[in-house]
Amino acid sequence: MKTVARLTLDDARLMMAAAEKKAKEIGVDMDIAIVDDGGHLLLFQRMDNARITSITIAIDKAFTAAAARKSTRAYGEVSGPGQPAFGINTSLGGRFMIFAGGLPIFVKDQPVGGIGCSSGSPDQDELVAQAGLDALQQVL
Amino acid sequence: MKTVARLTLDDARLMMAAAEKKAKEIGVDMDIAIVDDGGHLLLFQRMDNARITSITIAIDKAFTAAAARKSTRAYGEVSGPGQPAFGINTSLGGRFMIFAGGLPIFVKDQPVGGIGCSSGSPDQDELVAQAGLDALQQVL
Amino acid sequence: MKTVARLTLDDARLMMAAAEKKAKEIGVDMDIAIVDDGGHLLLFQRMDNARITSITIAIDKAFTAAAARKSTRAYGEVSGPGQPAFGINTSLGGRFMIFAGGLPIFVKDQPVGGIGCSSGSPDQDELVAQAGLDALQQVL
Amino acid sequence: MKTVARLTLDDARLMMAAAEKKAKEIGVDMDIAIVDDGGHLLLFQRMDNARITSITIAIDKAFTAAAARKSTRAYGEVSGPGQPAFGINTSLGGRFMIFAGGLPIFVKDQPVGGIGCSSGSPDQDELVAQAGLDALQQVL
Repeated sequence: MKTVARLTLDDARLMMAAAEKKAKEIGVDMDIAIVDDGGHLLLFQRMDNARITSITIAIDKAFTAAAARKSTRAYGEVSGPGQPAFGINTSLGGRFMIFAGGLPIFVKDQPVGGIGCSSGSPDQDELVAQAGLDALQQVL
Repeated sequence: MKTVARLTLDDARLMMAAAEKKAKEIGVDMDIAIVDDGGHLLLFQRMDNARITSITIAIDKAFTAAAARKSTRAYGEVSGPGQPAFGINTSLGGRFMIFAGGLPIFVKDQPVGGIGCSSGSPDQDELVAQAGLDALQQVL
Repeated sequence: MKTVARLTLDDARLMMAAAEKKAKEIGVDMDIAIVDDGGHLLLFQRMDNARITSITIAIDKAFTAAAARKSTRAYGEVSGPGQPAFGINTSLGGRFMIFAGGLPIFVKDQPVGGIGCSSGSPDQDELVAQAGLDALQQVL
Repeated sequence: MKTVARLTLDDARLMMAAAEKKAKEIGVDMDIAIVDDGGHLLLFQRMDNARITSITIAIDKAFTAAAARKSTRAYGEVSGPGQPAFGINTSLGGRFMIFAGGLPIFVKDQPVGGIGCSSGSPDQDELVAQAGLDALQQVL
C-alpha cells in the first residue's frame, strides 16, 4: 500500500470560487469542472450564459488533465497531422481533449486531480482554470 | 414564440445548499445534480464520502426527471415485467433512470428542470432531492 | 486535502496469485480483474479456458464493487422487479454489475479498490474474489 | 477446419515480464496490454505511476495491432489529411489507434495477438512493446 493526497469538496469549492471570479473579471460565463485524481467529477457549475456543448467539454478537459497528468494544451501541441500523438483526441470514446482549458492539479509533485473550463476561447478557458489552480496553491 | 421560466445558477445553488443540509442531517454523503429544462447539467457536487458510481446515476436521475417531467420513482412503478413501460430503463443508452432519487422541478406548473441524488438508499436519495425542491418553492 | 491509502501493483499481484490459486483449486479458469479506488484497472488476467464475455464482466464487477463500495451480490439482492434498485444494472452504460463475483477492497474501513471474477457460476466467481481479498488482509 | 496457434497466459506473462523490464530500464512506468488473435484482453498491468488515460489506450493499441495485424504506427503513416486511411482513427467507436505503441504478434507468419503500451512518448511505448515481442521470439 502507499499513501496519497486527495482533494476534498472544500478544496474544490475554493478553486471553483477563484475560477468563477476570474471568468467574471474577463466577462465570459463558463462551464467549470473539477475532478479528483481518478478523473471523477467532484464539482461542476455552469454559469448562466455558458454553452451547453461546453458542459461535457469542460468535464472531459478536467478528466484528461487529471488522468493524463498534463495540460490539454500540451497534448494539442503534439497531435497535429504528422506529429507523434496524431489521433489521440478520438481515443477513450472521444473524451481525450487536446485544446487548451484543462490543467492537472499537482500538490507537492503529486497528481491529485484536474480542472477544466470551456465556453470562451481556449486561451480564456485556460486562464480561468489557472486561477483555480493558483487559489489552491495559496492555501497549501 | 413563447416565454419560459428558466433556472439560474443561483436558483440551483439555493437548492443544492438545502439538499446538502438534508444529506448531512441524515448522515449520508451524496452526489447531487441539478439540471435545466433541457436536462443539461447546471450544478453538481460530490460530498466527500459519496459513491463514484453515483456521479453518473445522480446526473442521469436529474436528467430523466427533468426531461420526462416525472419522478424517477414513478417510472419504476410502471416498468416491472408485464407493466406498460417495461424496458424503458435501457433506452437512451441506459440513461433513463427508474428508481427513486430524481425529481422534476416545476414552477407554476411549468417544468424547469430536475434534481437527482444518489449514494444512499433510493428513499434517502429522494428525501434529499425533495429538500432541494422545497427550498426553491419557499422563495418563489 | 486529505490522505488516503492506495493499492500498489505489488498488492494487486499478491491478490491475483491467491485468486488464481483458488480458481485452479476449484478447477475453473477465470477472468480476474483488480481495480483501484477510482475503479480503474490495475491488473487483469484471463486464464487459458476462461470466457471471452467474462473479460468485460470481470472488469465491470471490480469497477462496480470499488466505485459503489459494496459487493455486486448485495446489489442483486435489491434490484429485482418491485425492489428499490430495480433497473440499476442498466445504469452507467450497462457497466453496473449486480450478480455475485465483485467484492470491494477495504483497508482499515477505507475503500481502496475492487476485485472482480467471472467465468464460473456467480458463487464460484465470488469465492475466487474472496481468496484475493483474504490474501491482502493477511499481509496488512 | 484449420488449426491455428494461440497465445497462452504463460506466453503473455513472458512478454509482460520483458516489457516491464524494458519500461523500468528507460524509467517510464507504463500501462501494458496483451491480447489474443481475436483482439481480446489476455493480460494487463498498470505500473504504479502509469497514466489512467493510458489504460484504455494500451488495450486499444493491442487490440488494433492484433485485429488489423499491423503496427499502430503504420496506420498513423497513412492516416493524415489527404492520405488513404484518413479518418480511420474514429472507426470502431474510436478504438482504432493510429500512433506508435501497438505491435502485432506473429508466430511463423501467423497472427496470434498484439501488445500495446502507453504512458511514455509513442516511441518509448513502441520500444517497450518490442521488448515483449522479442522475448517471445527467443523461446519459439
